[in-house]
Amino acid sequence: MTVRQLGLPELTETCVRLGVPGVGLWREPVQAYGTEAAAKLVRDAGLVVTTLCRGGFLTAIDPARRAEALADNRAAVDEAAVLGTDTLVLVSGGLPEGSKDLHGARERIAEALGELAPYAAERGVRLAIEPLHPMFASDRCVVSTLDQALDLAERFPADQVGVAVDTYHIWWDDRAPAAVVRAAERIFTFQLADWTTPLPAGVLNGRGQLGDGAINLRAWRERVDAAGYSGPIEVELFNDDLWQRDGVELLTEVAERYVRHAL
Amino acid sequence: MTVRQLGLPELTETCVRLGVPGVGLWREPVQAYGTEAAAKLVRDAGLVVTTLCRGGFLTAIDPARRAEALADNRAAVDEAAVLGTDTLVLVSGGLPEGSKDLHGARERIAEALGELAPYAAERGVRLAIEPLHPMFASDRCVVSTLDQALDLAERFPADQVGVAVDTYHIWWDDRAPAAVVRAAERIFTFQLADWTTPLPAGVLNGRGQLGDGAINLRAWRERVDAAGYSGPIEVELFNDDLWQRDGVELLTEVAERYVRHAL
Repeated sequence: MTVRQLGLPELTETCVRLGVPGVGLWREPVQAYGTEAAAKLVRDAGLVVTTLCRGGFLTAIDPARRAEALADNRAAVDEAAVLGTDTLVLVSGGLPEGSKDLHGARERIAEALGELAPYAAERGVRLAIEPLHPMFASDRCVVSTLDQALDLAERFPADQVGVAVDTYHIWWDDRAPAAVVRAAERIFTFQLADWTTPLPAGVLNGRGQLGDGAINLRAWRERVDAAGYSGPIEVELFNDDLWQRDGVELLTEVAERYVRHAL
Repeated sequence: MTVRQLGLPELTETCVRLGVPGVGLWREPVQAYGTEAAAKLVRDAGLVVTTLCRGGFLTAIDPARRAEALADNRAAVDEAAVLGTDTLVLVSGGLPEGSKDLHGARERIAEALGELAPYAAERGVRLAIEPLHPMFASDRCVVSTLDQALDLAERFPADQVGVAVDTYHIWWDDRAPAAVVRAAERIFTFQLADWTTPLPAGVLNGRGQLGDGAINLRAWRERVDAAGYSGPIEVELFNDDLWQRDGVELLTEVAERYVRHAL
């Protein structure tokens, strides 16, 4: 998503040229390209699919909507399996229209995970609950802290349900360093983005290029390392300004920034 | 600030007519009107000044800027004393330019409070640390949760330094209900605003009218009640759309919404 302006062939080609060994994919461009074809393209390029983003949105109260969400998540698991990634990232979902009950929404996520986790495990896919910044609590994700994500994940086996640790969402939280220790083997992916202000309207597409913002990225990488994480590190920037730029140039810059600020 | 379109005379007159017994004031309009004159106006109307907003911005590293901030906060304490309110609300400040050290910034706030709290106490003024929503952590307030505010406040006597509990900033936090219990007699003011989306650019002026958003305001009022708080309840809406409306009409609506959603 960092370089959404690139098609999948150009993306994989540029990753290979830059020495980037893996890529996290989003469902929409994969579906547009064809899941089998995308899997072959990335595999033939010698790249690993680090994660598939995203499943989730599991907070519906209405039974028909809930069933629809579960079906869509099973489809996402299937797509992850075809792509050969072991991790599906979940954005849990916000409050249903008219509801003010955060606790109830979180409990419905747990119930849904109870159905999805075994389905995913049978297909070799793990579910990574991603806490999103509290500014998304009402409309996108009622799971706002790493501890909340772990409270949910720990109800399930550690090889089935874990968390996605994204610096953008947790950097402000003085309890997050301890939560990283707590997460340990449940850290299924580690994502980097920097925090820059002012935030744009809607606050979705204002993530900062690595090094441009307030986050000590290397300190977070070292915490995740110390917790025993040795998997891929992803850079996930949603940024309207960055998306206006040439994608190859941007991906080159991201790789340089990664080395300078996080390696 | 909810009705910043009203001048102080119109504001106090409308409060009296609506049966609103007190008003929280901001420094800028008070200074523009004259602090003594504002104090007389409000007092003569039979209203209480609930709080003065705001002091704070205590995170500077540069010694000259730090001295400037302390002087400004002493001036704010003096103004609070003139207005006859016992509470000055503090917005602690963000990260200094180029800094990525949240912990260091929070420690500098504690140091500054060590100088300000006795000065304020001598003048009958208490300092209320207001945790701001984590989306303000870099540029406005490194104190992002009620627990963090209490970690700071509890270093000082309970009648000198406490917290401002504002639903807008803490509603998403599953640990905040316990923090309200912890806060107990350190709750120096309780403020209401609702959470609505999408957030506007800059995210400062998007607070929702009571009842329009995701927050169960009455549940928070009941928690604060149960913690023993019996002081004034303030409504603090920063909202560009509301500020476009007729101020008297808006204040009337706010009073109605308060009764319907929080009383």
